[in-house]
Amino acid sequence: MSSENLMDPEHQTRTHAPVSKCRYFLMGLGTTLFATAIALAVYQATSDPFLFKSGKTFKRPQIAADQQGLQDPVKDKGVVVASGSVRTTWPDPPPHDQVAKVARYIVHTSDWATVATFSTQKVTEGFPFGNVLSVSDGPIDKSSGTPYMYLTPLDFTAIDLEKDNRASLTMSEAQSDYCHKKDFDPEDPRCARILITGEIMKVENGTAEWGFAEAAMFSRHPIMKSWPTDHKFFFAKMNIMNIFVLDYFGGAAKVDINEYFSAAMP
Amino acid sequence: MSSENLMDPEHQTRTHAPVSKCRYFLMGLGTTLFATAIALAVYQATSDPFLFKSGKTFKRPQIAADQQGLQDPVKDKGVVVASGSVRTTWPDPPPHDQVAKVARYIVHTSDWATVATFSTQKVTEGFPFGNVLSVSDGPIDKSSGTPYMYLTPLDFTAIDLEKDNRASLTMSEAQSDYCHKKDFDPEDPRCARILITGEIMKVENGTAEWGFAEAAMFSRHPIMKSWPTDHKFFFAKMNIMNIFVLDYFGGAAKVDINEYFSAAMP
Repeated sequence: MSSENLMDPEHQTRTHAPVSKCRYFLMGLGTTLFATAIALAVYQATSDPFLFKSGKTFKRPQIAADQQGLQDPVKDKGVVVASGSVRTTWPDPPPHDQVAKVARYIVHTSDWATVATFSTQKVTEGFPFGNVLSVSDGPIDKSSGTPYMYLTPLDFTAIDLEKDNRASLTMSEAQSDYCHKKDFDPEDPRCARILITGEIMKVENGTAEWGFAEAAMFSRHPIMKSWPTDHKFFFAKMNIMNIFVLDYFGGAAKVDINEYFSAAMP
Repeated sequence: MSSENLMDPEHQTRTHAPVSKCRYFLMGLGTTLFATAIALAVYQATSDPFLFKSGKTFKRPQIAADQQGLQDPVKDKGVVVASGSVRTTWPDPPPHDQVAKVARYIVHTSDWATVATFSTQKVTEGFPFGNVLSVSDGPIDKSSGTPYMYLTPLDFTAIDLEKDNRASLTMSEAQSDYCHKKDFDPEDPRCARILITGEIMKVENGTAEWGFAEAAMFSRHPIMKSWPTDHKFFFAKMNIMNIFVLDYFGGAAKVDINEYFSAAMP
């Protein structure tokens, strides 16, 4: 790693020319990235608690935090986690006709999702753009239904969301070994998937929800606690607007959002 | 399943009210969907071989079919497939610094991807929208580098692509048990992921590429052969414009497209 490289290397775009040939390029790149980071930091310090701006407005179901199972954040943070590691074998799913439960089951059981945003990278600008994010809707014994994540302004996704925070999260039972064991092709409707659409918002520091988000992410993804502080990671959540479930023949089902948040987890 | 339901039920939007209570709604829905299907069929019969329209133009690397390992489609179709089923355990990946190889490895080894499009559904219109598709870049012993898929005009994705065929495909080693075994969090950069952006095009019937696409999909997803003909499934491919690989500390790498297509598969 070149010492001219002022930014933390983890989230830069790598080049493949030998370092000796691109020393001046890297110096320029480093300076540019450093300046960008300063500008971002200043912007963040002066902007409102919701980091991301929406390009459009839309009708969003109003779900209060207290409906989402947030009670005592201190207690939430103290929850004993049954499993802190990513699982390839999931518990058995709910019956396919209970689509709100199926959605809750997949959101809670998945440790990661594909997030789709509008790309702001020069080479892919304006394209719908997929990335992989670790997610958690709560510690293993406390599902809230709201997908939380841990983002860094150095990564593609947070940069995209800064311009337009409309996004989708896609999760599938194909992420576990369930469909494979059942011999369901990943595109088979019985290999259940959920397509969640909404806005991704920053979780405001020091709030009860911030405590819950921290417990949600760090209990399920314990390695994140050790991720570098200079990456300026922050907690964010998907403010859910719509959920489609495809878990059986008969086409996708639109899930009632209130039914989703009130569904009991198995 | 209601008998009033004229369309094949697999790709309709389900309702959850009991059938007896929504008989008239379903009759109306069935008629609407039937009319839509007729309109789509007429449109397809009269439109050019590339089903999808792009909202914008972009510079696309010109990769000729013969560079993509397409030789004798009859021979390609006759390839003996080592494994026809979806795998949760993948072969070992290439070294992380050979990013073109890593991209080829993930594209060839993955049996599915998350596709991101611009949603055209009323409730999610204009949002970046993720869906799950089974993919294949060739029979197990013949990787082309081009991701093929098998779409139906009844599914979200094909409907979206009809309006704007710009899309991304996201695939991750987290889809296998590799990251879990290595104790890599799904968001850990060492849990390799690739973010492919481009246009999704219909593969024209009867061409050499059509034969290859059929061999690619049906050898890796044999159940697809039996999927209902009235769903009007067709072969499509991602015309790759850009590939980002994140497979190690140091940030995402932009892969040279020619290097990608000429990379030898392990």
